[in-house]
Amino acid sequence: MEDMSGPPSVSRDLESYLRMLLPHRASLRSVVIPVILEAISEIDVALQSSLHVTLAGTANSFGDDQLNVDVVAENIVRAALNRYPSAFRTASSEEDPVERSIISGASATEVTAEKYTVAFDPLDGSSIIKPNWSVGSIFGIWEGESALSKSPEKNQIAAVLGVYGPRTTAFVALQVPGAPVESVCFELGLPMRDQWQIIRPVVKLDEGPFKTRYFAPANLRSAADDQLYMNLVSFYIKEKYTLRYSGGLVPDVAHALTKGHGIYLSPATGASTAKLRRLYELVPVALVVECAGGKAIEPLTGKRILETPIRDCDERGALVCGTAEEVELAQRAFAPR
Amino acid sequence: MEDMSGPPSVSRDLESYLRMLLPHRASLRSVVIPVILEAISEIDVALQSSLHVTLAGTANSFGDDQLNVDVVAENIVRAALNRYPSAFRTASSEEDPVERSIISGASATEVTAEKYTVAFDPLDGSSIIKPNWSVGSIFGIWEGESALSKSPEKNQIAAVLGVYGPRTTAFVALQVPGAPVESVCFELGLPMRDQWQIIRPVVKLDEGPFKTRYFAPANLRSAADDQLYMNLVSFYIKEKYTLRYSGGLVPDVAHALTKGHGIYLSPATGASTAKLRRLYELVPVALVVECAGGKAIEPLTGKRILETPIRDCDERGALVCGTAEEVELAQRAFAPR
Repeated sequence: MEDMSGPPSVSRDLESYLRMLLPHRASLRSVVIPVILEAISEIDVALQSSLHVTLAGTANSFGDDQLNVDVVAENIVRAALNRYPSAFRTASSEEDPVERSIISGASATEVTAEKYTVAFDPLDGSSIIKPNWSVGSIFGIWEGESALSKSPEKNQIAAVLGVYGPRTTAFVALQVPGAPVESVCFELGLPMRDQWQIIRPVVKLDEGPFKTRYFAPANLRSAADDQLYMNLVSFYIKEKYTLRYSGGLVPDVAHALTKGHGIYLSPATGASTAKLRRLYELVPVALVVECAGGKAIEPLTGKRILETPIRDCDERGALVCGTAEEVELAQRAFAPR
Repeated sequence: MEDMSGPPSVSRDLESYLRMLLPHRASLRSVVIPVILEAISEIDVALQSSLHVTLAGTANSFGDDQLNVDVVAENIVRAALNRYPSAFRTASSEEDPVERSIISGASATEVTAEKYTVAFDPLDGSSIIKPNWSVGSIFGIWEGESALSKSPEKNQIAAVLGVYGPRTTAFVALQVPGAPVESVCFELGLPMRDQWQIIRPVVKLDEGPFKTRYFAPANLRSAADDQLYMNLVSFYIKEKYTLRYSGGLVPDVAHALTKGHGIYLSPATGASTAKLRRLYELVPVALVVECAGGKAIEPLTGKRILETPIRDCDERGALVCGTAEEVELAQRAFAPR
């Protein structure tokens, strides 16, 4: 399959911004990121028309029930990657968690020097799509032909979160070796029938002092068997943190990035094993949060999520992320384990 | 101002359904409800294009900060009501909480025998619109020329909740005296560039047994000073209820109506006064929940929300609503006060 007439267009402001941020990465800035944004737009359009959210009659490779909209979103991303294969080498997704080559019919001269692997969760938040709550898509972009057994911190050079709510927005995080700006997170919007535009060129969590503190306790049922988690949640309530927990990783993280403060917790205990996929959820979200000046750690060890290579597409993990001082506080709360 | 060429169109299925439910209420079924749905569609379109959510530079009559999108939504509803004035007599909103006549230039013959008052919250969930979480609109439809000092249960004959998320959906509740179906709640969807369609003709909370139980604890900060609320939240955690709390009344109630189970709590204590407006929030939501087979009570007294007349547009109250057995359990938990 050859590349179409050209990659999708973005607004002139966004094009200039990407050129400034990525002067030596022509494929990343003019193919990879625009193609991912195009896929997000197409998923948004598909969701708007998906009045009936139903089981697809199958389970994905993780044994989760698959919804009709999961299948639609997966197909949209695959089709978008296949339309512009020159810069993509390999892709895998939560719905099909095996790294597969992107079939490219491009001749050797068309194939760029840049090679990227994409790992994506096409529609995160299945449990809240039927009630019409905001959901998202997650993309991690890696150097080379695989995301496995590499340092996420060095090789996952970009991540994109698409947010489908009343509007369609996206957070893009870049941490590209040798780029003029070491790391950056910015927010984009897609107004109806228009191009992607910059809403906030620099997304940074606030430094404090904080007027309002937000907490999002995932997997809260596990606090029934985990006194440390229960104590931490009680602490947040007593200290009058504001609860905001949608149950969708993308909207929950987007909330913190927009409000400038927040702590998201998805701990794992003996009885309640880790649920989030490292490749499709934890590692790209961790890059976004770190590029916005926050922290993302594995609560049991206190290690940064981005420190540990991913050995298998199916690997799962626990997560605490958000405002740095809140992550440190939560880390101390979980430390006695 | 005269009526335009005609009220907005709905799908044939919805038209037939409304005709069956409301045989003797021509204006309600062919003007009032379609006009409200049209306003919801227009607000949805406006939100999709509202990339920048900012303060409007003013506060509304309650002293809340007003956002640019609040103003836009208010103007859309007012314009929609004014375009089809024949069936509307009076309107008031959270943004302008005074009952005002709808200016009608229609001649006496054009004015129908049906007279309705609309009380609406054009955009509920201001705090979560910027992070792009789902938000909603709330409409209560009353017999006659005022909503004040009347029995809500007898005179508020319909309510509509619009939900702006990845899709646009609405819940319509009808409890019209003398109608063939005493009370009903149904769900509608608006696919892109299309007409309103029925998603679920009958929305009913489940009877149980419940595989998953959901709780949405609003105003959770108040549990710091309210041991009864804290005990109840601890009970939900220990009993492994699933937490879903967006902080938007409409999406939080829509979640329960979609999942078939849920308990929403917004108690008031000495230190933390009631926040929700009875006219624009509590009473229409209570009608929707009751028409779906649930309960909606004032937690301190245990009285049904719909029992108590509203004396003033500004009146506020506490709320516990959702699955009947959960509301009763919460009521007992708050009873010792």
